[in-house]
Amino acid sequence: MKIKAGIIGATGYAGAELVRILLMHPQAEIAAISSVSFEGKALSEVYPSYKNLCDMECKTQDEVVAKSDVIFAALPHGLSQELAAQCDKAGKAFIDLGADFRLKSEEEYQEWYGGTFLDKELHEKSVYGLPELFRSNIQGKKIIANPGCYTTGAPLALAPAIVGKLVSTEGIIIDSKSGVTGAGRKPSQGSHYPELNEGFHAYKAANHRHTPEIEQTLSTLSGEKVTITFVPHLLPVNRGILSTCYARIREGVTFGQIRTAYETFYENEYFVRLLPDGAYADIHNIKYSNFCDISLHHDSRTNTLIAISAIDNMVKGAAGQAIQNMNIIFGLSETTGLELVPPAF
Amino acid sequence: MKIKAGIIGATGYAGAELVRILLMHPQAEIAAISSVSFEGKALSEVYPSYKNLCDMECKTQDEVVAKSDVIFAALPHGLSQELAAQCDKAGKAFIDLGADFRLKSEEEYQEWYGGTFLDKELHEKSVYGLPELFRSNIQGKKIIANPGCYTTGAPLALAPAIVGKLVSTEGIIIDSKSGVTGAGRKPSQGSHYPELNEGFHAYKAANHRHTPEIEQTLSTLSGEKVTITFVPHLLPVNRGILSTCYARIREGVTFGQIRTAYETFYENEYFVRLLPDGAYADIHNIKYSNFCDISLHHDSRTNTLIAISAIDNMVKGAAGQAIQNMNIIFGLSETTGLELVPPAF
Amino acid sequence: MKIKAGIIGATGYAGAELVRILLMHPQAEIAAISSVSFEGKALSEVYPSYKNLCDMECKTQDEVVAKSDVIFAALPHGLSQELAAQCDKAGKAFIDLGADFRLKSEEEYQEWYGGTFLDKELHEKSVYGLPELFRSNIQGKKIIANPGCYTTGAPLALAPAIVGKLVSTEGIIIDSKSGVTGAGRKPSQGSHYPELNEGFHAYKAANHRHTPEIEQTLSTLSGEKVTITFVPHLLPVNRGILSTCYARIREGVTFGQIRTAYETFYENEYFVRLLPDGAYADIHNIKYSNFCDISLHHDSRTNTLIAISAIDNMVKGAAGQAIQNMNIIFGLSETTGLELVPPAF
Amino acid sequence: MKIKAGIIGATGYAGAELVRILLMHPQAEIAAISSVSFEGKALSEVYPSYKNLCDMECKTQDEVVAKSDVIFAALPHGLSQELAAQCDKAGKAFIDLGADFRLKSEEEYQEWYGGTFLDKELHEKSVYGLPELFRSNIQGKKIIANPGCYTTGAPLALAPAIVGKLVSTEGIIIDSKSGVTGAGRKPSQGSHYPELNEGFHAYKAANHRHTPEIEQTLSTLSGEKVTITFVPHLLPVNRGILSTCYARIREGVTFGQIRTAYETFYENEYFVRLLPDGAYADIHNIKYSNFCDISLHHDSRTNTLIAISAIDNMVKGAAGQAIQNMNIIFGLSETTGLELVPPAF
Repeated sequence: MKIKAGIIGATGYAGAELVRILLMHPQAEIAAISSVSFEGKALSEVYPSYKNLCDMECKTQDEVVAKSDVIFAALPHGLSQELAAQCDKAGKAFIDLGADFRLKSEEEYQEWYGGTFLDKELHEKSVYGLPELFRSNIQGKKIIANPGCYTTGAPLALAPAIVGKLVSTEGIIIDSKSGVTGAGRKPSQGSHYPELNEGFHAYKAANHRHTPEIEQTLSTLSGEKVTITFVPHLLPVNRGILSTCYARIREGVTFGQIRTAYETFYENEYFVRLLPDGAYADIHNIKYSNFCDISLHHDSRTNTLIAISAIDNMVKGAAGQAIQNMNIIFGLSETTGLELVPPAF
Repeated sequence: MKIKAGIIGATGYAGAELVRILLMHPQAEIAAISSVSFEGKALSEVYPSYKNLCDMECKTQDEVVAKSDVIFAALPHGLSQELAAQCDKAGKAFIDLGADFRLKSEEEYQEWYGGTFLDKELHEKSVYGLPELFRSNIQGKKIIANPGCYTTGAPLALAPAIVGKLVSTEGIIIDSKSGVTGAGRKPSQGSHYPELNEGFHAYKAANHRHTPEIEQTLSTLSGEKVTITFVPHLLPVNRGILSTCYARIREGVTFGQIRTAYETFYENEYFVRLLPDGAYADIHNIKYSNFCDISLHHDSRTNTLIAISAIDNMVKGAAGQAIQNMNIIFGLSETTGLELVPPAF
Repeated sequence: MKIKAGIIGATGYAGAELVRILLMHPQAEIAAISSVSFEGKALSEVYPSYKNLCDMECKTQDEVVAKSDVIFAALPHGLSQELAAQCDKAGKAFIDLGADFRLKSEEEYQEWYGGTFLDKELHEKSVYGLPELFRSNIQGKKIIANPGCYTTGAPLALAPAIVGKLVSTEGIIIDSKSGVTGAGRKPSQGSHYPELNEGFHAYKAANHRHTPEIEQTLSTLSGEKVTITFVPHLLPVNRGILSTCYARIREGVTFGQIRTAYETFYENEYFVRLLPDGAYADIHNIKYSNFCDISLHHDSRTNTLIAISAIDNMVKGAAGQAIQNMNIIFGLSETTGLELVPPAF
Repeated sequence: MKIKAGIIGATGYAGAELVRILLMHPQAEIAAISSVSFEGKALSEVYPSYKNLCDMECKTQDEVVAKSDVIFAALPHGLSQELAAQCDKAGKAFIDLGADFRLKSEEEYQEWYGGTFLDKELHEKSVYGLPELFRSNIQGKKIIANPGCYTTGAPLALAPAIVGKLVSTEGIIIDSKSGVTGAGRKPSQGSHYPELNEGFHAYKAANHRHTPEIEQTLSTLSGEKVTITFVPHLLPVNRGILSTCYARIREGVTFGQIRTAYETFYENEYFVRLLPDGAYADIHNIKYSNFCDISLHHDSRTNTLIAISAIDNMVKGAAGQAIQNMNIIFGLSETTGLELVPPAF
């Protein structure tokens, strides 16, 4: 019997991407979908790509919860906590693509999102779903905080060096570049084609909400409080995040040791592809797939590690990882339905 | 047991796309690949997208033929005839993505391609593989001429009107716009990023080799010789062909009759999606899939049918259709491995 | 003394392009600008490109009229008639980039735009400002209907053949492809970057408001009522319109005669560049300039003329042509301030 | 009388851009052009954009030197030294867009470019032409080393902070993103449209030849040896370089002091636009112009200065700056012919 999956917020980009992947998943099926803006409308009216493939009508949240074994929520922050409680009570798995359960510290949540933890117990039951780093925590859980897009690629690029204490945890700089889908489906001046096309700029420099989430992950990995400088930029492409991460190599550590540490760390990770020396991670090569490509470079003149990761912000950075988490909590092989081949062009 | 598929010319774009789709095909596997330019190299070195997915080495043509049940050839025209003979002798199925077997008339082949038919018997054994129009001919055949990209989308847009004698076969105009992958993998000034980006132009106006192939299909469907005006253009996108087809509606025929004819004609065709009134076929909605979206529009002021089709030139216009043909000749369901969901963005 | 130019609707795309060109015009200066949406704001706040170049504040329409010798209006249709009257009364030149004065027939205006002619006398005083075709009418006029974007490129591509009676006026098909700026500055789902990028589709097939305007021009040139089939498409580029025009060549007329007719017709036109045989008009080559490139192609199999024009929809299709009209009515050389070099990339 | 300008290497991108700007320059005219690859061909055959504007034929280098007052050379490195000697002997001004005269240290030139200084005296006569930083050195010189593209934007972003000793000169990180024209006109797999479009990657990380040139400038400004980490990336756009520069703020220095220092430093610089707080430098806003937009951001959590600059790599990063240098050495106002308005879209 297939897992019955429900999607709340199905007409946003992350929701629509969940639909795309679930439609090809051999052991799950979409039971119901909801959308506040398009209630009563067929999904294929909103996204004509899905004509004949998902003509399902958008229902209410309650209907989705009732019909599903697992509920994916792709909602603006602040709206997931009550929903999580509802799912918890009903004994359903809940995978939150929003931010409500990502930060462990309520203080940080307040500072960056301006809200409070409505139910602390619920937060304690939840787990941060970045499988390559925290897999064992995820098994057996039913409330999953799916990481944000920037917060997947950058930590994966740095994790082996941090865990192995090969780089300084001070002065880490993460310069990220994201495709436009990261900004969501709502039209705005900044994503209006003629004003974004042939343009490129940073935004929310040192001020983006994914900052504390990246720091939380790196701090957990290193065992000490890590503070980073994080600057995101907007790329004129649909999909993909490239994160160029800079960290000072600790004295006595060689670049060869770093490479070996990465090889060992990711040896058995299907979704992480460590590129050979001389190759560069490129968002071109992971589009539409759940892969995270990582390339390592050494600035020998300043003894700096340059670790670059490329992910599809909508797949490994959202819907794909959410389904990876679903696979884990339902006891499936982690790659089920996620062996998506990134097109060569 | 899975079908063993071989790809000759695997490092070209059509070849690489065959790899992508075959990797996800549940009843076929890639047995061997070849490439003249990259012999001895792993495919994933040429296309880093395929790292860990297809690290297979490029072999010789003979090795591919020896190891495969079906041989796909994605070669420049003129190189397939001998290969077809070799496969025929070895009792292997041969699906040609090149032009050598597409034209039934040797005279036309000479005029447009400058070559001759090396072995007429072989040509008689071959069949033109556009399943939605000529499915029954394909079953039982082993040499398949897979249609060109323009020659799939435009005929599908016009077929029901032609078959039903609803439009004049004179004065048909096909204005097509293709993504850049149609020009192949070899770098050239015309496909150099800064010179193509933000540009748009026609090429080979009334002079493109797909002209006689489209005419052959329309003539077969109508039972009379059809001559068309065909102008292709180059779009600054990677994939997709949109064909805007203009045909004069015959006196006494209503637009409603035309729509009904299309609905009936394509009723059971999974890969053709006839859009509702008011919608427009868009290459955005069929990318990476084997779908052909068709929209119909009526110029009531001049009583002209405007039929627009959108296909992915690399899928329905090349590799996807080739695999559709493979499914037919191996007795599989036609959609096997081809239920590719076009991404919403 | 420089001409004092005022722009009403300066924050729309056509208005902003007027600013760009006027800033480099040696004999005109921007006296005042207005914008309903951004009144009181500096233009450079709306378009940071113009920082330090045009930090002028958006004023009211009345202020613009008061301060200017010539008023350019880039407004939605229906709003220009009263403004024209106001300028007329004040003895100021008025160049309307909107549609209100373009159609000579009130009946057609009603049919396509749903409005009426508020003051017929004013309409009689106005002239259709397509200089290459109607130059002598423009001199001495003070109310100029500046043509729409599609309605400049397509008529220029066909004019010499129509005037010379070299092609049939029946069955003309115009297949146009426009950059996104043609849709204006207001964000919408259809121009949201991720949904337009890598896409391509037609819109308003046989139903676009520029249809009667093109017909009006062609009818004037031919002396008989011309009805066309016109289908516009949306290109994923910022600027440029390519119009592929199909017309049946009259019996007895050779393609050589047609080419000669074009050469003669455009001999002294600085802004029309007739390309040599074998070359193709490309929007890449006219971007940011007031040029209209035209290439001619012959389908000898169906004896069809394929005339292709490329213009920048924002320059020759809007602001540049408006300034060309200004130059004419103020007695300047037509090319003053318009010798804009299209960048090579 | 106008300055007679000659361009050697006119068919490369920098050469073609020199043509574009010089065609609009009121006090200079193109006397002759040369190109090894296209000798005897008209420039407008190579770049159809320039039809009727620059149909000049490509001649030999000697002819260019003979006919010109100033010679611009846009050549691969290693080819300029002899040419400089030839111009010097002939008493002509020489502006080198290549790398041969940029590095003052022959040792560094050998290390990064693999060549030697053929004539040391000539190198001593030459000057590094970054006017905003070294204007007074340029006046009176006749051999100008025009800076590279990355080496203009990044130093301008950092200069006031370095000169004012407001940031540490250790640990400076420059993460740059360049449009594709930076890679030149020669087609290659990496700039083939389908493989670059929708992609993004770094290249030559910590290994790019502009590294020592940036260090030379920063070292000169600071009075001490500065070593940087520099990682360039390739953006899927035609033009523009955005450099995101990270520097640790010295203890006791406030961000307000830094802003004031920038304001003072660039107060009278026409081509540098310091953006207000909250705005972000964007390549969209400086395309086709000689502007360098700079925005300043403060990471108060790590006390890091984030200085971002945007230039058009072909204008301020090549041809525009070269003409700015020409204006200086010929005693013209620096902005002559360079008041190019960046289009709003």
